[in-house]
Amino acid sequence: MSFFSFELDPALAADPVFDLHRHGKMAIAPTVSLASRDDLSLAYTPGVARVCEAIAADPALAADYTWTANTVAVVTDGTAVLGLGDIGPRAAMPVMEGKAVLFKQFGGVDAVPICLDTTDVDELVAIVTALAPSFGGINLEDISAPRCFEIERRLDEALDIPVFHDDQHGTAVVVLAALRNATRLLDRRFADLRVVISGAGAAGVAIAKVLIAAGVNGANVIVCDSRGIVHAERGDLNPAKAELAALTNYSGRSGGIAEALIGADVLIGVSGGTIGEDALAGMNRGGIIFGLANPTPEVLPVVAHKYASVVATGRSDFPNQINNVLAFPGIFRGALDARATTVTEGMKVAAAEAIAEVVADDLRPEAIVPSPLDPRVAPAVAAAVARAAERDGVARRITASVEPAAAPV
Amino acid sequence: MSFFSFELDPALAADPVFDLHRHGKMAIAPTVSLASRDDLSLAYTPGVARVCEAIAADPALAADYTWTANTVAVVTDGTAVLGLGDIGPRAAMPVMEGKAVLFKQFGGVDAVPICLDTTDVDELVAIVTALAPSFGGINLEDISAPRCFEIERRLDEALDIPVFHDDQHGTAVVVLAALRNATRLLDRRFADLRVVISGAGAAGVAIAKVLIAAGVNGANVIVCDSRGIVHAERGDLNPAKAELAALTNYSGRSGGIAEALIGADVLIGVSGGTIGEDALAGMNRGGIIFGLANPTPEVLPVVAHKYASVVATGRSDFPNQINNVLAFPGIFRGALDARATTVTEGMKVAAAEAIAEVVADDLRPEAIVPSPLDPRVAPAVAAAVARAAERDGVARRITASVEPAAAPV
Repeated sequence: MSFFSFELDPALAADPVFDLHRHGKMAIAPTVSLASRDDLSLAYTPGVARVCEAIAADPALAADYTWTANTVAVVTDGTAVLGLGDIGPRAAMPVMEGKAVLFKQFGGVDAVPICLDTTDVDELVAIVTALAPSFGGINLEDISAPRCFEIERRLDEALDIPVFHDDQHGTAVVVLAALRNATRLLDRRFADLRVVISGAGAAGVAIAKVLIAAGVNGANVIVCDSRGIVHAERGDLNPAKAELAALTNYSGRSGGIAEALIGADVLIGVSGGTIGEDALAGMNRGGIIFGLANPTPEVLPVVAHKYASVVATGRSDFPNQINNVLAFPGIFRGALDARATTVTEGMKVAAAEAIAEVVADDLRPEAIVPSPLDPRVAPAVAAAVARAAERDGVARRITASVEPAAAPV
Repeated sequence: MSFFSFELDPALAADPVFDLHRHGKMAIAPTVSLASRDDLSLAYTPGVARVCEAIAADPALAADYTWTANTVAVVTDGTAVLGLGDIGPRAAMPVMEGKAVLFKQFGGVDAVPICLDTTDVDELVAIVTALAPSFGGINLEDISAPRCFEIERRLDEALDIPVFHDDQHGTAVVVLAALRNATRLLDRRFADLRVVISGAGAAGVAIAKVLIAAGVNGANVIVCDSRGIVHAERGDLNPAKAELAALTNYSGRSGGIAEALIGADVLIGVSGGTIGEDALAGMNRGGIIFGLANPTPEVLPVVAHKYASVVATGRSDFPNQINNVLAFPGIFRGALDARATTVTEGMKVAAAEAIAEVVADDLRPEAIVPSPLDPRVAPAVAAAVARAAERDGVARRITASVEPAAAPV
């Protein structure tokens, strides 16, 4: 007897996407052989006991004699998966496996998908804190805002390994890289840019912060959420948005996206909504539009080009794909190489500069960021991040392999 | 600046055990390629979203379209590692990695070591419950008694995937297999055996239970802990030992190991202590001694052979190595193949019978169990366990590949 007998749905089995996903996208690979009694006695009992004892006496040795120093947990609670929303931990797994494959392929990082069956912030913090001895870093993924901010902050405070919410900082780093190259092309300075960010979730908040850290004047940044411009007089702001209100929009402008865009040089869409031409018409001509929602950008390129000189999306079938895979494999590679205790703002900015630099010699309006598959990106990002970790005093290891810094961007 | 620069200890670097453990013993291996934009669009966005949506609509599809159905978490809190005791989660990692390598090599199971930085029973239960969507099974490892009993029971109740504390049941299964073949050799029946188990920790408790489930008369089983024979009149018993007292030693014998061994046919040592010849002298001649403590058996073979006809240890350098690796890879392979919701007593007994059967054609006193490296064992165990899961009504999939049952042992 069994509860039920399981057969594959024939329609799914014939679908190339589902066919590729059969049995998942990853496996464990031993790197030692246990084929003989001698192998067993070295890699397992009794030999392994000596390694355990050495680590018990000096926990820092775990980084050398276990896989943890090269291993990242890709942690989600499934509350904000792609554009699908709160689909839960089981349904989030294919995305986390994809992320793990990208970590390995581009960064040589061993990433383990951890999909957690709780959405309670305290529980998530406690669980990831308890998991930390098993990993060299924590990549938070697809956790809904504003919970993601508190979870990341508390984990970063609690743990001595890098904690990085990719939906925030991965996106922000690539946007910064793209904006750096776009302004080079247009011969504009960050300090003079008027920037509107449509969307005040994980990505929007992080983009605002990293742009200000990189030299954009907070006075000239306006963030909009679904209720319009974020400003300090609004009574409906969560703590993350209240912080944004303090960092941006010094003149306290109010209204909707159309009001926000009047006189703007840059529009960065990370909202999922659509922005109409009547609103875009208020922008200064010759500027920059990034419509990053997937699969439907806030502004399709054909429309964006009417109002801006440099246009990017999140899609692979348009030029200038702003994709986090340009950032996270190299950022963790560099952070792990440096055995960094955290990911500093300096490491994020360094990652963005390195991404931008890869295509700096051949900069064109339709090539402001490298292809997501460009193999030069992750090593360049890793080296820059490791150097920045050292500079910022958060490296526990000096990586002899690190090349000298590239010429300043 | 950095906190400190890290150099390998030269003495450790030159040691073959440490050399083998450099960077750990395992890695993540993608099973799909992400080398082209087409690859990305199938395995990652946008294609992956359809797989996520399908699983959100029917969570059972996660078993087909993610790696979880073949994946086991090897979970410890580092409180009872090998004979080393409470060395903590970081120092436990080399053992868990070794276990993961053995899982893959012998069972084709993808095992992920999870070393948790908490020893609180409620927290451990909550954490592993939250982790469960990421895995097809939970192997608990090196968690101290009596906490291990409650943790396993509560997780087994909470989860619909197999939960298996290897220190209990892996050991018990292999002991049962060895005892089955030893009694065959000696032409003895389980029902008539007088059995003494020295040690009332994880292994001792599980061995007592599985032997009774397999036909040994509880009246004829005596378990000793460090304070002597476990009996119902003792006031110092934890719940697990109180349960043992009710299951064993019906006549309420008391005293130490020497009193326990008077008239015993079988001694099974899982205590780590040493048992002197004066105590062994009380045993019935022609019996069985398993001294399983590592690295020093409770009774060394040269001594054991003076008092018993069949002798086993846990060591690879003596005949008859009782090693859990004979059990856990095949047990999880079979449980995962059947998509079992739990591991029943029937599945454990079936595993033991399958292990015993592998060497049944060539039974000798120095070969009552297969070598831990015998490649025939895990497939035989897996098939027997999957059949038993089906028989016990806990299989969610009928495995067409399962061979018919072997002739009864």
